[in-house]
Amino acid sequence: MWNSEIPEAAIIRLSVYSRYLMKLKEKGIINVSSSDIAEVVGVKPGQIRKDLSYFGKFGTRGSGYNVLDLYNQTLKILSLYSCWSVSLVGCGNLGSALSRYGGYKERGFYITSIFDNDPKKIGTVIYGVEVMHIERLEEVVKKNRTQIGIISVPDTAAQTIADSLIRSGVKGILSFAPIILNVPPKVEIQYIDLTGYLEVLAFRIQNKN
Amino acid sequence: MWNSEIPEAAIIRLSVYSRYLMKLKEKGIINVSSSDIAEVVGVKPGQIRKDLSYFGKFGTRGSGYNVLDLYNQTLKILSLYSCWSVSLVGCGNLGSALSRYGGYKERGFYITSIFDNDPKKIGTVIYGVEVMHIERLEEVVKKNRTQIGIISVPDTAAQTIADSLIRSGVKGILSFAPIILNVPPKVEIQYIDLTGYLEVLAFRIQNKN
Repeated sequence: MWNSEIPEAAIIRLSVYSRYLMKLKEKGIINVSSSDIAEVVGVKPGQIRKDLSYFGKFGTRGSGYNVLDLYNQTLKILSLYSCWSVSLVGCGNLGSALSRYGGYKERGFYITSIFDNDPKKIGTVIYGVEVMHIERLEEVVKKNRTQIGIISVPDTAAQTIADSLIRSGVKGILSFAPIILNVPPKVEIQYIDLTGYLEVLAFRIQNKN
Repeated sequence: MWNSEIPEAAIIRLSVYSRYLMKLKEKGIINVSSSDIAEVVGVKPGQIRKDLSYFGKFGTRGSGYNVLDLYNQTLKILSLYSCWSVSLVGCGNLGSALSRYGGYKERGFYITSIFDNDPKKIGTVIYGVEVMHIERLEEVVKKNRTQIGIISVPDTAAQTIADSLIRSGVKGILSFAPIILNVPPKVEIQYIDLTGYLEVLAFRIQNKN
Protein backbone atom coordinates (compact mmCIF):
# COMPACT_ATOMS: atom_id res chain seq x y z
CA MET A 1 0.00 0.00 0.00
CA TRP A 2 1.42 3.33 -1.08
CA ASN A 3 1.40 6.63 0.64
CA SER A 4 -1.81 8.43 -0.18
CA GLU A 5 0.13 11.68 -0.51
CA ILE A 6 1.76 10.70 -3.78
CA PRO A 7 0.78 13.48 -6.24
CA GLU A 8 -1.82 12.47 -8.80
CA ALA A 9 0.43 13.85 -11.56
CA ALA A 10 3.18 11.41 -10.54
CA ILE A 11 0.74 8.48 -10.75
CA ILE A 12 -0.43 9.58 -14.21
CA ARG A 13 3.19 9.90 -15.36
CA LEU A 14 3.98 6.45 -13.92
CA SER A 15 1.12 5.15 -16.05
CA VAL A 16 2.59 6.93 -19.10
CA TYR A 17 6.06 5.42 -18.44
CA SER A 18 4.50 2.01 -17.91
CA ARG A 19 2.71 2.13 -21.27
CA TYR A 20 5.94 3.11 -23.00
CA LEU A 21 7.77 0.25 -21.27
CA MET A 22 5.03 -2.10 -22.50
CA LYS A 23 5.88 -1.07 -26.07
CA LEU A 24 9.63 -1.49 -25.50
CA LYS A 25 8.96 -4.95 -24.08
CA GLU A 26 6.88 -5.87 -27.13
CA LYS A 27 9.77 -4.78 -29.36
CA GLY A 28 12.14 -7.04 -27.40
CA ILE A 29 14.25 -4.19 -26.00
CA ILE A 30 16.18 -5.26 -22.89
CA ASN A 31 17.53 -2.09 -21.30
CA VAL A 32 16.51 1.55 -21.28
CA SER A 33 17.93 4.69 -19.72
CA SER A 34 15.81 7.32 -18.03
CA SER A 35 16.89 9.79 -20.74
CA ASP A 36 15.55 7.43 -23.44
CA ILE A 37 12.19 7.20 -21.67
CA ALA A 38 12.26 10.93 -21.00
CA GLU A 39 12.80 11.82 -24.64
CA VAL A 40 9.88 9.74 -25.88
CA VAL A 41 7.32 10.65 -23.23
CA GLY A 42 8.43 14.29 -23.14
CA VAL A 43 9.67 14.86 -19.57
CA LYS A 44 13.11 15.65 -18.11
CA PRO A 45 15.14 12.57 -17.05
CA GLY A 46 15.23 13.89 -13.48
CA GLN A 47 11.44 13.84 -13.42
CA ILE A 48 11.36 10.10 -14.08
CA ARG A 49 13.81 9.36 -11.29
CA LYS A 50 11.83 11.61 -8.95
CA ASP A 51 8.50 10.00 -9.89
CA LEU A 52 9.88 6.49 -9.43
CA SER A 53 11.39 7.41 -6.07
CA TYR A 54 7.87 7.73 -4.62
CA PHE A 55 7.47 4.00 -5.12
CA GLY A 56 10.87 2.55 -4.24
CA LYS A 57 14.35 2.05 -5.65
CA PHE A 58 14.70 1.11 -9.31
CA GLY A 59 17.60 0.63 -11.73
CA THR A 60 21.32 0.97 -11.19
CA ARG A 61 23.07 4.32 -11.40
CA GLY A 62 24.74 4.58 -14.82
CA SER A 63 23.30 1.39 -16.31
CA GLY A 64 19.66 2.37 -16.60
CA TYR A 65 16.71 0.05 -16.20
CA ASN A 66 15.90 -3.48 -17.23
CA VAL A 67 12.75 -3.00 -19.32
CA LEU A 68 10.88 -6.14 -18.28
CA ASP A 69 11.74 -5.67 -14.63
CA LEU A 70 10.72 -2.01 -14.49
CA TYR A 71 7.59 -2.71 -16.55
CA ASN A 72 6.52 -5.47 -14.14
CA GLN A 73 7.15 -3.21 -11.18
CA THR A 74 5.03 -0.42 -12.66
CA LEU A 75 2.22 -2.92 -13.28
CA LYS A 76 2.46 -4.05 -9.67
CA ILE A 77 2.40 -0.48 -8.33
CA LEU A 78 -0.54 0.42 -10.54
CA SER A 79 -2.42 -2.79 -9.54
CA LEU A 80 -2.57 -3.89 -13.17
CA TYR A 81 -1.35 -7.44 -12.66
CA SER A 82 -4.96 -8.45 -12.32
CA CYS A 83 -7.77 -7.44 -14.64
CA TRP A 84 -10.39 -4.83 -13.91
CA SER A 85 -14.02 -5.31 -14.84
CA VAL A 86 -15.52 -2.09 -16.14
CA SER A 87 -19.15 -1.25 -16.84
CA LEU A 88 -19.98 1.47 -19.35
CA VAL A 89 -23.24 3.31 -18.80
CA GLY A 90 -24.52 5.45 -21.66
CA CYS A 91 -23.83 4.48 -25.23
CA GLY A 92 -24.25 7.76 -27.13
CA ASN A 93 -21.50 9.17 -29.35
CA LEU A 94 -18.99 9.38 -26.54
CA GLY A 95 -19.92 6.12 -24.80
CA SER A 96 -19.87 4.28 -28.07
CA ALA A 97 -16.35 5.59 -28.81
CA LEU A 98 -15.22 4.65 -25.30
CA SER A 99 -16.49 1.12 -25.79
CA ARG A 100 -14.45 0.81 -28.99
CA TYR A 101 -11.31 2.48 -27.63
CA GLY A 102 -8.55 -0.14 -27.39
CA GLY A 103 -6.14 1.84 -25.20
CA TYR A 104 -7.31 0.51 -21.86
CA LYS A 105 -8.00 -3.07 -22.90
CA GLU A 106 -4.29 -3.70 -23.37
CA ARG A 107 -3.77 -2.41 -19.83
CA GLY A 108 -6.18 -4.89 -18.27
CA PHE A 109 -9.40 -2.85 -18.17
CA TYR A 110 -12.18 -4.91 -19.74
CA ILE A 111 -15.59 -3.50 -20.52
CA THR A 112 -17.75 -6.38 -19.34
CA SER A 113 -21.13 -4.68 -19.65
CA ILE A 114 -22.70 -1.77 -21.51
CA PHE A 115 -26.03 -0.14 -20.66
CA ASP A 116 -28.32 2.33 -22.35
CA ASN A 117 -32.03 3.15 -22.32
CA ASP A 118 -32.45 3.62 -26.08
CA PRO A 119 -34.45 0.65 -27.50
CA LYS A 120 -32.56 1.01 -30.81
CA LYS A 121 -29.24 0.33 -29.09
CA ILE A 122 -30.32 -2.47 -26.75
CA GLY A 123 -29.31 -5.85 -28.14
CA THR A 124 -26.59 -4.44 -30.41
CA VAL A 125 -23.14 -5.88 -29.80
CA ILE A 126 -19.95 -3.82 -29.49
CA TYR A 127 -16.70 -5.80 -29.58
CA GLY A 128 -18.49 -8.84 -28.21
CA VAL A 129 -20.41 -7.02 -25.47
CA GLU A 130 -24.18 -6.72 -25.78
CA VAL A 131 -25.79 -3.39 -24.93
CA MET A 132 -28.37 -4.05 -22.20
CA HIS A 133 -31.26 -2.03 -20.85
CA ILE A 134 -30.26 0.18 -17.96
CA GLU A 135 -32.84 -1.59 -15.78
CA ARG A 136 -30.51 -4.59 -15.70
CA LEU A 137 -27.54 -2.56 -14.43
CA GLU A 138 -27.66 -3.55 -10.75
CA GLU A 139 -28.24 -7.25 -11.43
CA VAL A 140 -25.44 -7.53 -14.03
CA VAL A 141 -22.84 -5.31 -12.35
CA LYS A 142 -23.28 -7.25 -9.10
CA LYS A 143 -23.06 -10.60 -10.85
CA ASN A 144 -19.87 -9.57 -12.71
CA ARG A 145 -18.32 -8.12 -9.55
CA THR A 146 -17.54 -5.05 -11.62
CA GLN A 147 -15.12 -2.70 -9.88
CA ILE A 148 -15.28 0.40 -12.08
CA GLY A 149 -18.19 2.20 -13.72
CA ILE A 150 -17.87 4.72 -16.53
CA ILE A 151 -20.71 7.24 -16.71
CA SER A 152 -21.35 8.81 -20.10
CA VAL A 153 -25.03 9.67 -19.75
CA PRO A 154 -26.64 13.14 -19.86
CA ASP A 155 -25.89 15.11 -16.68
CA THR A 156 -29.50 14.97 -15.49
CA ALA A 157 -29.22 11.16 -15.23
CA ALA A 158 -25.67 10.97 -13.89
CA GLN A 159 -26.42 11.00 -10.14
CA THR A 160 -29.08 8.26 -10.45
CA ILE A 161 -26.64 6.10 -12.41
CA ALA A 162 -23.87 6.74 -9.89
CA ASP A 163 -26.22 5.66 -7.09
CA SER A 164 -27.09 2.43 -8.95
CA LEU A 165 -23.44 1.66 -9.63
CA ILE A 166 -22.54 2.22 -5.98
CA ARG A 167 -25.44 0.02 -4.77
CA SER A 168 -24.09 -2.66 -7.13
CA GLY A 169 -20.71 -2.55 -5.43
CA VAL A 170 -18.41 -0.62 -7.78
CA LYS A 171 -15.36 0.83 -6.06
CA GLY A 172 -14.60 3.60 -8.52
CA ILE A 173 -16.39 5.81 -11.03
CA LEU A 174 -15.07 7.67 -14.05
CA SER A 175 -17.63 10.30 -14.97
CA PHE A 176 -17.91 12.34 -18.15
CA ALA A 177 -20.97 14.24 -16.88
CA PRO A 178 -20.24 17.90 -16.11
CA ILE A 179 -21.62 17.84 -12.58
CA ILE A 180 -20.04 16.95 -9.28
CA LEU A 181 -21.47 13.63 -8.09
CA ASN A 182 -22.39 12.85 -4.53
CA VAL A 183 -20.59 9.61 -3.63
CA PRO A 184 -19.70 8.02 -0.27
CA PRO A 185 -16.05 8.20 0.83
CA LYS A 186 -15.55 4.48 0.12
CA VAL A 187 -15.99 5.15 -3.61
CA GLU A 188 -13.24 6.78 -5.67
CA ILE A 189 -14.31 9.23 -8.33
CA GLN A 190 -12.56 10.78 -11.28
CA TYR A 191 -14.09 13.36 -13.60
CA ILE A 192 -13.38 14.02 -17.26
CA ASP A 193 -15.24 17.13 -18.32
CA LEU A 194 -14.47 17.52 -22.02
CA THR A 195 -16.18 20.87 -22.46
CA GLY A 196 -14.73 22.05 -19.14
CA TYR A 197 -11.18 21.36 -20.34
CA LEU A 198 -11.84 23.32 -23.54
CA GLU A 199 -13.18 26.22 -21.49
CA VAL A 200 -10.11 26.18 -19.23
CA LEU A 201 -7.95 26.26 -22.36
CA ALA A 202 -9.92 29.23 -23.75
CA PHE A 203 -9.64 31.03 -20.40
CA ARG A 204 -5.88 30.49 -20.28
CA ILE A 205 -5.38 31.58 -23.90
CA GLN A 206 -7.35 34.75 -23.29
CA ASN A 207 -5.60 35.59 -20.02
CA LYS A 208 -2.07 34.83 -21.10
CA ASN A 209 0.48 37.38 -19.96
CA MET B 1 -7.33 39.85 -17.55
CA TRP B 2 -7.59 37.61 -14.53
CA ASN B 3 -5.00 36.64 -12.02
CA SER B 4 -3.08 33.66 -13.34
CA GLU B 5 -3.09 32.16 -9.87
CA ILE B 6 -6.78 31.27 -9.93
CA PRO B 7 -6.90 27.51 -9.28
CA GLU B 8 -7.73 25.41 -12.34
CA ALA B 9 -10.43 23.63 -10.32
CA ALA B 10 -12.21 26.96 -9.74
CA ILE B 11 -12.18 27.69 -13.48
CA ILE B 12 -13.60 24.24 -14.27
CA ARG B 13 -16.33 24.75 -11.64
CA LEU B 14 -17.11 28.20 -13.06
CA SER B 15 -17.59 26.48 -16.41
CA VAL B 16 -19.92 23.94 -14.74
CA TYR B 17 -21.97 26.73 -13.09
CA SER B 18 -22.08 28.62 -16.38
CA ARG B 19 -23.48 25.60 -18.24
CA TYR B 20 -26.14 25.14 -15.57
CA LEU B 21 -27.05 28.85 -15.80
CA MET B 22 -27.38 28.41 -19.57
CA LYS B 23 -30.03 25.76 -18.95
CA LEU B 24 -31.86 27.92 -16.40
CA LYS B 25 -31.84 30.80 -18.88
CA GLU B 26 -33.30 28.54 -21.59
CA LYS B 27 -36.09 27.55 -19.19
CA GLY B 28 -36.87 31.23 -18.57
CA ILE B 29 -35.88 31.19 -14.91
CA ILE B 30 -35.11 34.69 -13.61
CA ASN B 31 -33.43 34.25 -10.22
CA VAL B 32 -31.39 31.54 -8.56
CA SER B 33 -29.78 31.17 -5.15
CA SER B 34 -26.31 29.74 -4.64
CA SER B 35 -27.89 26.82 -2.76
CA ASP B 36 -30.06 26.00 -5.79
CA ILE B 37 -27.01 25.96 -8.06
CA ALA B 38 -25.04 24.05 -5.42
CA GLU B 39 -27.63 21.31 -5.14
CA VAL B 40 -27.76 20.63 -8.87
CA VAL B 41 -24.06 20.76 -9.62
CA GLY B 42 -23.13 18.94 -6.42
CA VAL B 43 -21.01 21.43 -4.46
CA LYS B 44 -21.52 23.27 -1.16
CA PRO B 45 -23.12 26.75 -1.50
CA GLY B 46 -20.03 28.31 0.11
CA GLN B 47 -17.92 26.84 -2.67
CA ILE B 48 -19.86 28.76 -5.31
CA ARG B 49 -19.47 32.05 -3.47
CA LYS B 50 -15.77 31.37 -3.00
CA ASP B 51 -15.25 30.43 -6.66
CA LEU B 52 -17.11 33.52 -7.88
CA SER B 53 -15.12 35.75 -5.53
CA TYR B 54 -11.99 35.09 -7.62
CA PHE B 55 -13.64 36.95 -10.46
CA GLY B 56 -15.47 39.84 -8.77
CA LYS B 57 -18.62 40.63 -6.83
CA PHE B 58 -21.86 38.95 -7.88
CA GLY B 59 -25.42 38.83 -6.54
CA THR B 60 -26.95 40.46 -3.51
CA ARG B 61 -26.72 38.91 -0.07
CA GLY B 62 -30.01 37.14 0.66
CA SER B 63 -31.60 37.64 -2.75
CA GLY B 64 -29.41 35.37 -4.85
CA TYR B 65 -28.41 35.93 -8.43
CA ASN B 66 -30.13 37.16 -11.55
CA VAL B 67 -29.71 34.20 -13.92
CA LEU B 68 -29.16 36.13 -17.16
CA ASP B 69 -26.80 38.59 -15.52
CA LEU B 70 -24.67 35.92 -13.83
CA TYR B 71 -24.71 33.77 -16.96
CA ASN B 72 -23.47 36.65 -19.10
CA GLN B 73 -20.75 37.45 -16.59
CA THR B 74 -19.54 33.82 -16.57
CA LEU B 75 -19.43 33.88 -20.38
CA LYS B 76 -17.39 37.06 -20.27
CA ILE B 77 -14.95 35.65 -17.70
CA LEU B 78 -14.57 32.44 -19.69
CA SER B 79 -14.09 34.37 -22.96
CA LEU B 80 -17.08 32.62 -24.49
CA TYR B 81 -18.81 35.71 -25.85
CA SER B 82 -16.95 35.13 -29.08
CA CYS B 83 -16.69 31.82 -30.90
CA TRP B 84 -13.64 29.59 -30.94
CA SER B 85 -12.50 27.83 -34.08
CA VAL B 86 -11.32 24.31 -33.30
CA SER B 87 -9.47 21.85 -35.52
CA LEU B 88 -9.75 18.14 -34.82
CA VAL B 89 -6.80 16.01 -35.89
CA GLY B 90 -7.30 12.24 -35.95
CA CYS B 91 -10.67 10.80 -36.76
CA GLY B 92 -10.51 7.29 -35.27
CA ASN B 93 -13.10 6.05 -32.77
CA LEU B 94 -12.36 8.77 -30.26
CA GLY B 95 -11.88 11.61 -32.77
CA SER B 96 -15.03 10.63 -34.56
CA ALA B 97 -17.00 10.75 -31.29
CA LEU B 98 -15.45 14.11 -30.41
CA SER B 99 -16.51 15.52 -33.77
CA ARG B 100 -20.10 14.44 -33.09
CA TYR B 101 -20.19 15.55 -29.46
CA GLY B 102 -22.59 18.46 -29.12
CA GLY B 103 -21.54 19.60 -25.65
CA TYR B 104 -19.03 22.21 -26.71
CA LYS B 105 -20.82 23.51 -29.78
CA GLU B 106 -23.49 25.10 -27.58
CA ARG B 107 -20.66 26.82 -25.68
CA GLY B 108 -19.19 28.44 -28.76
CA PHE B 109 -16.51 25.93 -29.75
CA TYR B 110 -16.93 25.10 -33.43
CA ILE B 111 -15.04 22.30 -35.12
CA THR B 112 -14.13 24.04 -38.36
CA SER B 113 -11.78 21.39 -39.77
CA ILE B 114 -11.11 17.68 -39.35
CA PHE B 115 -7.98 15.86 -40.54
CA ASP B 116 -6.95 12.25 -40.91
CA ASN B 117 -4.54 10.25 -43.05
CA ASP B 118 -6.86 7.31 -43.77
CA PRO B 119 -7.98 7.46 -47.46
CA LYS B 120 -11.27 5.82 -46.50
CA LYS B 121 -12.13 8.73 -44.21
CA ILE B 122 -10.97 11.61 -46.38
CA GLY B 123 -13.89 13.25 -48.13
CA THR B 124 -16.50 11.96 -45.67
CA VAL B 125 -18.55 14.66 -43.98
CA ILE B 126 -19.27 14.85 -40.25
CA TYR B 127 -21.92 17.36 -39.21
CA GLY B 128 -21.15 19.45 -42.25
CA VAL B 129 -17.36 19.34 -41.92
CA GLU B 130 -15.37 17.43 -44.52
CA VAL B 131 -12.53 15.22 -43.33
CA MET B 132 -9.37 16.38 -45.11
CA HIS B 133 -5.97 14.83 -45.63
CA ILE B 134 -3.56 15.73 -42.88
CA GLU B 135 -1.22 17.24 -45.51
CA ARG B 136 -3.67 20.14 -45.78
CA LEU B 137 -3.58 20.90 -42.03
CA GLU B 138 -1.24 23.90 -42.07
CA GLU B 139 -2.89 25.56 -45.06
CA VAL B 140 -6.45 25.16 -43.70
CA VAL B 141 -5.77 25.90 -40.03
CA LYS B 142 -3.95 29.09 -40.99
CA LYS B 143 -6.69 30.17 -43.38
CA ASN B 144 -9.41 29.56 -40.75
CA ARG B 145 -7.39 31.37 -38.05
CA THR B 146 -8.09 28.35 -35.86
CA GLN B 147 -7.21 28.98 -32.21
CA ILE B 148 -7.48 25.51 -30.71
CA GLY B 149 -6.35 22.10 -31.95
CA ILE B 150 -7.56 18.77 -30.61
CA ILE B 151 -5.09 15.91 -31.04
CA SER B 152 -6.58 12.42 -31.12
CA VAL B 153 -3.94 10.63 -33.17
CA PRO B 154 -1.72 7.70 -32.07
CA ASP B 155 0.95 8.83 -29.62
CA THR B 156 3.77 8.27 -32.11
CA ALA B 157 2.28 10.96 -34.36
CA ALA B 158 1.20 13.41 -31.65
CA GLN B 159 4.36 15.56 -31.46
CA THR B 160 4.51 16.01 -35.26
CA ILE B 161 0.86 17.07 -35.29
CA ALA B 162 1.41 19.44 -32.37
CA ASP B 163 4.33 21.04 -34.26
CA SER B 164 2.16 21.50 -37.37
CA LEU B 165 -0.67 23.02 -35.34
CA ILE B 166 1.71 25.43 -33.64
CA ARG B 167 3.31 26.46 -36.94
CA SER B 168 -0.22 27.15 -38.18
CA GLY B 169 -0.84 29.56 -35.33
CA VAL B 170 -3.04 27.71 -32.83
CA LYS B 171 -2.91 29.16 -29.33
CA GLY B 172 -4.00 26.08 -27.42
CA ILE B 173 -3.94 22.30 -27.74
CA LEU B 174 -6.13 19.66 -26.15
CA SER B 175 -4.31 16.34 -26.46
CA PHE B 176 -5.65 12.84 -25.92
CA ALA B 177 -2.27 11.24 -26.66
CA PRO B 178 -0.65 9.70 -23.56
CA ILE B 179 2.65 11.52 -23.93
CA ILE B 180 3.83 14.90 -22.73
CA LEU B 181 4.16 17.21 -25.72
CA ASN B 182 6.93 19.68 -26.24
CA VAL B 183 5.30 23.05 -26.87
CA PRO B 184 6.61 26.62 -26.64
CA PRO B 185 5.46 28.73 -23.65
CA LYS B 186 3.18 30.82 -25.86
CA VAL B 187 0.97 27.76 -26.47
CA GLU B 188 -1.41 26.47 -23.80
CA ILE B 189 -1.75 22.73 -23.47
CA GLN B 190 -4.27 20.51 -21.74
CA TYR B 191 -4.06 16.72 -21.59
CA ILE B 192 -6.86 14.19 -21.36
CA ASP B 193 -5.33 10.76 -20.87
CA LEU B 194 -8.31 8.38 -20.73
CA THR B 195 -6.31 5.27 -19.85
CA GLY B 196 -4.23 7.29 -17.41
CA TYR B 197 -7.35 8.37 -15.50
CA LEU B 198 -8.53 4.75 -15.31
CA GLU B 199 -5.13 3.73 -13.96
CA VAL B 200 -5.20 6.47 -11.33
CA LEU B 201 -8.64 5.22 -10.31
CA ALA B 202 -7.38 1.63 -10.06
CA PHE B 203 -4.37 2.81 -8.02
CA ARG B 204 -6.57 4.75 -5.62
CA ILE B 205 -9.05 1.88 -5.22
CA GLN B 206 -6.24 -0.54 -4.46
CA ASN B 207 -4.50 1.79 -1.99
CA LYS B 208 -7.54 2.96 -0.13
CA ASN B 209 -7.09 3.17 3.62
